[in-house]
Amino acid sequence: MRRFAADRAKKLVLSFQRSLYSQPPFSSCAAAAMSSNPLPVTVDTINAEVLKCEYAVRGEIVTHAQRLQQELQAKPGSHPFDEILYCNFGNPQSLGQQPITFFREVLALCDHPSLLDRDETHALFSSDSIERAWQILDQIPDRATGAYSHCQGVKGLRDSIAAGIAARDGFHANADDLFLTDGASPAVHMMMQLLLRSEKDGILCPIPQYPLYSASITLHGGTLVPYYLNEATGWGLEISEVKKQLEAAQSKGIAVWALVVINPGNPTGQVLTEDNQREIVDFCKKEGLVLLADEVYQENVYVDNKKFNSFKKISRSMGYGEEDIALVSFQSISKGYHGECGKRGGCMEVCGFSADVREQIYKIATVNACSNISGQILAGLVMNPPKAGDESFESYSAERDGILSSLARRAKTLEDTFKSLEGVSCNKAEGAMYLFPRIDLPQKAIEAAAAVKTAPDAFYALRLLDATGIVVVPGSGFGQVPGTWHIRCTILPPEDKIPAIVTRLTAFHESFMAEFRE
Amino acid sequence: MRRFAADRAKKLVLSFQRSLYSQPPFSSCAAAAMSSNPLPVTVDTINAEVLKCEYAVRGEIVTHAQRLQQELQAKPGSHPFDEILYCNFGNPQSLGQQPITFFREVLALCDHPSLLDRDETHALFSSDSIERAWQILDQIPDRATGAYSHCQGVKGLRDSIAAGIAARDGFHANADDLFLTDGASPAVHMMMQLLLRSEKDGILCPIPQYPLYSASITLHGGTLVPYYLNEATGWGLEISEVKKQLEAAQSKGIAVWALVVINPGNPTGQVLTEDNQREIVDFCKKEGLVLLADEVYQENVYVDNKKFNSFKKISRSMGYGEEDIALVSFQSISKGYHGECGKRGGCMEVCGFSADVREQIYKIATVNACSNISGQILAGLVMNPPKAGDESFESYSAERDGILSSLARRAKTLEDTFKSLEGVSCNKAEGAMYLFPRIDLPQKAIEAAAAVKTAPDAFYALRLLDATGIVVVPGSGFGQVPGTWHIRCTILPPEDKIPAIVTRLTAFHESFMAEFRE
Repeated sequence: MRRFAADRAKKLVLSFQRSLYSQPPFSSCAAAAMSSNPLPVTVDTINAEVLKCEYAVRGEIVTHAQRLQQELQAKPGSHPFDEILYCNFGNPQSLGQQPITFFREVLALCDHPSLLDRDETHALFSSDSIERAWQILDQIPDRATGAYSHCQGVKGLRDSIAAGIAARDGFHANADDLFLTDGASPAVHMMMQLLLRSEKDGILCPIPQYPLYSASITLHGGTLVPYYLNEATGWGLEISEVKKQLEAAQSKGIAVWALVVINPGNPTGQVLTEDNQREIVDFCKKEGLVLLADEVYQENVYVDNKKFNSFKKISRSMGYGEEDIALVSFQSISKGYHGECGKRGGCMEVCGFSADVREQIYKIATVNACSNISGQILAGLVMNPPKAGDESFESYSAERDGILSSLARRAKTLEDTFKSLEGVSCNKAEGAMYLFPRIDLPQKAIEAAAAVKTAPDAFYALRLLDATGIVVVPGSGFGQVPGTWHIRCTILPPEDKIPAIVTRLTAFHESFMAEFRE
Repeated sequence: MRRFAADRAKKLVLSFQRSLYSQPPFSSCAAAAMSSNPLPVTVDTINAEVLKCEYAVRGEIVTHAQRLQQELQAKPGSHPFDEILYCNFGNPQSLGQQPITFFREVLALCDHPSLLDRDETHALFSSDSIERAWQILDQIPDRATGAYSHCQGVKGLRDSIAAGIAARDGFHANADDLFLTDGASPAVHMMMQLLLRSEKDGILCPIPQYPLYSASITLHGGTLVPYYLNEATGWGLEISEVKKQLEAAQSKGIAVWALVVINPGNPTGQVLTEDNQREIVDFCKKEGLVLLADEVYQENVYVDNKKFNSFKKISRSMGYGEEDIALVSFQSISKGYHGECGKRGGCMEVCGFSADVREQIYKIATVNACSNISGQILAGLVMNPPKAGDESFESYSAERDGILSSLARRAKTLEDTFKSLEGVSCNKAEGAMYLFPRIDLPQKAIEAAAAVKTAPDAFYALRLLDATGIVVVPGSGFGQVPGTWHIRCTILPPEDKIPAIVTRLTAFHESFMAEFRE
């Protein structure tokens, strides 16, 4: 029986690996090109940093899921499930979440401003969306939403965002410190491009981490210096651990330039306490590290006893100013309650660098012209949503609260489900969009995975996908304490599908454990 | 008198240089940070490739222009002109060009799809824009315009674009070969990131070139291998010159991986002949070079005796397929008659790479999630505009033809103006959006420039800006034959301002020459 199970697993994974290579995500001509390619560009000649780079949340398991989806479309009933549920990526609107009406009204009016001159528009749009669109158009030079903006973003929009940040923090924010970007990813790449010269330059990153950081550090030729979050204390960030890893890296001759902190955590879902944040700020100040604060989930907090505090607020409240600490905050319109991933808007707030280094950041921004204006407009809107008294305030608030409370319910249900499974423990998702349960895999499953040269958690995730259509990302894509195994699962599937997910997940896990139990 | 002129010039330029450093484009706190910065990140520690990188079209002269604009706003009448005319950048909508109505109608409907269910919408939007919005929404999974798409772009939109490319070329195009990007710049960066490992890796680029290429090659640590275009033959591309430069680079131990060709030319405005394109394709095939074809100005051709042909069409018409030549075409929604720069849409068609190299290109795309969906939608629209019989066809055609014929008139007037100036010669703008006149500067002007450590053409451009408010880019930002001096001037100022530009430009040039004439 066990032998059979291992064989079956091996066959499945081999078929998965074969299919990955027999169907590259490209044209059929490519296969011909591969066999008789007279061109000198090969994987042996290209940039080795590209080859080394890995990005698990869109990696092989997703390619496999896309193929299963095509098979389901071509031949319904060909798999033991009728749809693929993408729980691999924080992409709410792909799973049925609706956009915030007010934001989209304003966006449509800015895209086609001549609507603003028409009477019919008043029947179709709220009065405050019309008013807001006028305000935004007046902020954009010549009302030209189709022109390249200032390379940091439209100045008037940055003024609005700075006002929103100041209102959030209670401390001044400067529009000239803001760089609007096409989502947070290009901002992270900009900082890595600035800071990293060679593999002797390091960046401290949490483990588990969001693999954008590892991918970007690899692509820019630097070294990721890992520090472990403590799962036993709810993914706590311990300064003693960070200090130990910093010193270990320095003793190997690595110059460590920055500390990445993701708060709320991804993939881990914890929300840092104020005390912890103060320790982190003091540590960075003392060690002369740039604090790279990933704050893209600042709106996503689901517990009453925690709230989001920006590192800017914390450091300013400690009395530290520009001259004391270099601090970069990454923000995004892709997350929060709005989840406007496809619009690609982001904002990076840059504080505490010398004028000549800032000029270099500015120069990198000029080379990319500017970020897309729709994303810039949305970045302004999420920092300045409707206020009490505005026509849209009530409906806006209802949409926002509905989404956030539903996310909290889904997080709780999925957390309880994971906790109920044999050999699985799961910290609370205090914030962000993910659960990161730990799975104590049976030795036989680990051996079956080794037999097909696959990480045990990837093996589990693959089996889960093949049995249920649920796509999760193996913990090995984020990093984890050696010998522990996790998966990351988003809390984003629509609420009416959660019961089925719970049932399928539970049944799969029981069957998996039965198959591999010692 | 001459001494006075040189002194005045020196004073002006020194004041310009000082102002650049006394007013960095950042917060006032930065100055404090600079003076007593305890942080280890300095310009001496950051990535040297960032320091080396230059991007003239948004460089120092533009920073100076922005400051003059602020001064004009704060104190009208403080300069001998009442507005800044940005002729430095191909940014049509910043200079009053209106967006194409049909494109913006569709975009607004896709941004706020619930409009499609309302009766009033039919009074505000054309019937074909409504129909097209439905088509596009049906191409997007779950109609989720706020979701991350496939990392290459929405498959249905890529299908539409591939159909548009096939209709343009008469040869099949494959949606799987297309990567939709936030403008063409990220696509260029992707290819440079893929191909370049060290300064021993080279890319052949035309001189003059669009400085995105030099900036991207520098940022990715490679070497730009220059080949000169022949100004005397209308910026002709001569294979003998390319071959000479290739061999010279190879003899220095540089591995040359690709040839960049910009057609229609930027900054040079020439449109390549079919014969020349065939020579280029054969050369790349023979030498095993990737042909990086910048085809962003494909809609911008202003002469009757030339037409745009894509390199894909040329190579396929020569019988060359996937296995014969590696070819990348960069396309953009920022140029053409539509000029939707702020929407940041672009498309890269990738042909002729082996499957395993393509997988690496795909991986780089996954790390950036996807490009913005509005830009993707526009990229689909520009390749599939309204057709005869569609309700919008007539108004669409009128808008398009009005813009293109106006651009042709503006190009001709400015060309004639430059040609009329003492010591200035100017090739025709057959295409693109620029004139690149050559200015034989008097020796005294060259000496005055040297005295303030400025390139002579930058000196001229700066004086032009200070006297007229017209912003052009010095030829030294693009590269030019040593000892020759040029400026790049866009043809984009609105037609009603062209007479004033002609007058101011002519008066300035006469005064400049009078000041520095031998």
